[in-house]
Amino acid sequence: MRTIDLNADVGESFGAWTMGRDAELIPLLTSVNIACGFHAGDPATIAATVALAKANGVAIGAHPGYPDLQGFGRRVMQASEEEVYQWVLYQAGAVRAFAQAVGERLHHVKAHGALYNQACVDLALSRGIVRAVKALGDNVAITVLAGSLTEQVARDAGLSVASEVFADRRYTDEGQLVSRKDPRAMITSEEESIRQVIAMVHQGRFQSVSGREISVRADTICLHGDQPGAVAFARAVRQALTELGITPRTYP
Amino acid sequence: MRTIDLNADVGESFGAWTMGRDAELIPLLTSVNIACGFHAGDPATIAATVALAKANGVAIGAHPGYPDLQGFGRRVMQASEEEVYQWVLYQAGAVRAFAQAVGERLHHVKAHGALYNQACVDLALSRGIVRAVKALGDNVAITVLAGSLTEQVARDAGLSVASEVFADRRYTDEGQLVSRKDPRAMITSEEESIRQVIAMVHQGRFQSVSGREISVRADTICLHGDQPGAVAFARAVRQALTELGITPRTYP
Amino acid sequence: MRTIDLNADVGESFGAWTMGRDAELIPLLTSVNIACGFHAGDPATIAATVALAKANGVAIGAHPGYPDLQGFGRRVMQASEEEVYQWVLYQAGAVRAFAQAVGERLHHVKAHGALYNQACVDLALSRGIVRAVKALGDNVAITVLAGSLTEQVARDAGLSVASEVFADRRYTDEGQLVSRKDPRAMITSEEESIRQVIAMVHQGRFQSVSGREISVRADTICLHGDQPGAVAFARAVRQALTELGITPRTYP
Amino acid sequence: MRTIDLNADVGESFGAWTMGRDAELIPLLTSVNIACGFHAGDPATIAATVALAKANGVAIGAHPGYPDLQGFGRRVMQASEEEVYQWVLYQAGAVRAFAQAVGERLHHVKAHGALYNQACVDLALSRGIVRAVKALGDNVAITVLAGSLTEQVARDAGLSVASEVFADRRYTDEGQLVSRKDPRAMITSEEESIRQVIAMVHQGRFQSVSGREISVRADTICLHGDQPGAVAFARAVRQALTELGITPRTYP
Repeated sequence: MRTIDLNADVGESFGAWTMGRDAELIPLLTSVNIACGFHAGDPATIAATVALAKANGVAIGAHPGYPDLQGFGRRVMQASEEEVYQWVLYQAGAVRAFAQAVGERLHHVKAHGALYNQACVDLALSRGIVRAVKALGDNVAITVLAGSLTEQVARDAGLSVASEVFADRRYTDEGQLVSRKDPRAMITSEEESIRQVIAMVHQGRFQSVSGREISVRADTICLHGDQPGAVAFARAVRQALTELGITPRTYP
Repeated sequence: MRTIDLNADVGESFGAWTMGRDAELIPLLTSVNIACGFHAGDPATIAATVALAKANGVAIGAHPGYPDLQGFGRRVMQASEEEVYQWVLYQAGAVRAFAQAVGERLHHVKAHGALYNQACVDLALSRGIVRAVKALGDNVAITVLAGSLTEQVARDAGLSVASEVFADRRYTDEGQLVSRKDPRAMITSEEESIRQVIAMVHQGRFQSVSGREISVRADTICLHGDQPGAVAFARAVRQALTELGITPRTYP
Repeated sequence: MRTIDLNADVGESFGAWTMGRDAELIPLLTSVNIACGFHAGDPATIAATVALAKANGVAIGAHPGYPDLQGFGRRVMQASEEEVYQWVLYQAGAVRAFAQAVGERLHHVKAHGALYNQACVDLALSRGIVRAVKALGDNVAITVLAGSLTEQVARDAGLSVASEVFADRRYTDEGQLVSRKDPRAMITSEEESIRQVIAMVHQGRFQSVSGREISVRADTICLHGDQPGAVAFARAVRQALTELGITPRTYP
Repeated sequence: MRTIDLNADVGESFGAWTMGRDAELIPLLTSVNIACGFHAGDPATIAATVALAKANGVAIGAHPGYPDLQGFGRRVMQASEEEVYQWVLYQAGAVRAFAQAVGERLHHVKAHGALYNQACVDLALSRGIVRAVKALGDNVAITVLAGSLTEQVARDAGLSVASEVFADRRYTDEGQLVSRKDPRAMITSEEESIRQVIAMVHQGRFQSVSGREISVRADTICLHGDQPGAVAFARAVRQALTELGITPRTYP
């Protein structure tokens, strides 16, 4: 049986502010990345989101970001390997305590926003993230951009790795995400997004923004949680994959 | 052999700001309470402090406080049982990850400042703290003010409890700490402090601020880490106790 | 001609999080209270909100709160007169710079949430707020709960004062707001809210939660900005008042 | 009469943490740059520092930085012109309110740390800072690195500008500061520092790190406030300059 993991960034509310429709989205997923309080999220939100994930049998992941609440962790920041190691360890340790408190375990870690993106092309940052996940113990996996430097560092370190692809992002010929500053970064058509997902998951090959064919390993698909049509889109992706005989299942 | 635990609040630096002389103080202790980032401390400071504790064979504790960096967690804040549960779980989970990353375990949790003080007389806050420590698993102890409501809640919940006494604080006839707003709150004479410690540890009885004799259970003595003479005072206390045949040792 | 000021708390978005529908609400008001970054708001939100207020000819006020972003300034916190003075001066000074940068002035200051509520019955807090507004200069007014201690302190200090009433809150026999913990705190019926507003503004008398008649001075009505029906309700209040010949106009 | 301004970054304490010896340093200066709460400082510290500056007749400046308390504003962050404009306006507006509250005025603005450094070579950041100072009104000056892009943008905008030189930093052949990552960045010998200051102020020419002679305009000298020997060094610089007939005086 062929399977695919469906993940999304959740738990991004903070204090009095709500973001995303987690209660509707999480039942459609097989794993979640929970914001840890640095760029979004707070202890109450983590507790509520862990409970939602447990209730829906969805794997619990930590989603650590830069210490930049005002910038939602999307601003590039200067950081050393050591700082990143400490920031990821701190945040993932906090979320893990909430998972364990309800009898669950921390399944994986996925870096957020600018930390995720910078690490894709920065060895020190990749090392910081990977070392932190390793320090969390043997059974914690890492989710990384398929084909990125972070993936390579994580595999070299012997971590359990989920290679991630994006349904609604366009890719360069080198298999990297087209920068959000480029107007072509986002796929806005649901139809085109689903076509890309199917190509990635079913054929393991898809087209870059310039039309070149790229091979890709797709263990997990990122479905964005903070966008208006997120829930409807998640449903459509699930259905399209299921029709092709691909079953949503947590990876690894 | 009679023993006593010697603890202090450490890891209270933040970013570019230094507080305390942890490197000198920690070798004189048997357990430390490490600030967790809400009222003081940050990931780099936690990492450095955990390393110091490990190097000195001192038990590692988490020292969670209110989310109030500007007020150093010393301002009374309105909080529900649930919020306190989540705040303590978050902070202790984060520090535990640093302990485990270097092959150590989280030995105990001790609430900080206004959270510690308010909980002493507030059932909901005591329950929030105790539930969080319980959620951290069987082998995590709690440090509580000897004779407080928190102690009672913790013992009723079946936690491993260390009853704490203060060397340099005066007590009411009811065995509570005299408020810091009262000029008699602090014992400023080293000699008097040591006399009080010996009475508490050796005889299990000491005098309240009004001269009344009070019974006390003293498992651990709090030595303040952020005061000018902290290191010299810790040395003096250790020596006085050792001369009486009382050996510093982690409790429990 | 009889007039009434219509105010609301706005600019409560923060970073990536949106709160309220300011662009729709502000045109219906005659003054706004802009969150200043401690409990909500950030520099970008302040800039955008000041621009909206200017475009709609609405008086610009600062809405300082406790330094508690996670708690949205609604948690009671321990604070001295001096701290409150400094917190209000800091926040109002920041918002004033944005107003002046677009050729407008800071019209008034209104404390937020727990600071507003605690000050109503706490002399030190009222003094802290009033002293800060006085320090901002002669032409800055203060908005206070009608009949509160803050109102008295502000009038004694010679400030220009707007006495505020709430359309959707019930009052005690003493003219204080019924606590939000009491299920009767909020008036949920639009019809009843409008009836209360009209009684307050038109007759200067209305009924407390127990049915007792209370006199009130109503210079300005608070319309909540962060609730689902806020915009529709603001329209209904404006219309009801206008039909009675009461014109919305900034006070003072 | 020849004069020179002596400035330092002060008010860098935060909450329970103390930094610098402002009470000893400020009497030796002619202008101060007060941290505004984003990277250091808080309302209480601003109030105390403004009072110290007023008591010593020293010009009051705002010292805005990146919103990064943990990193003390020294980490490079991604920021747009608009964000920088808003951050500077917010922070300087807050400090100005404290100055005006004691009958003083905001004399100048000087960006802090990574914001100051990045702006020296980034047009958008320089524009953001300069626009904010301009928005603060006609009589607020700006302190900039002598010879930097920020200086040029500020002069083009018609601001009143103080060109700043550093006593204890080495310069490249292009007149920029040698990066702190380079071991030669800091001059650690007091004698050499004073020699550099005298060359800069007296001759308007000094030697780069490679020994090349560089022309410089020196309106104000930055004396670091957060270093151990800061007070003694400030005294030595004052004395050396006074002996050459150069009088410390606020500029402009």
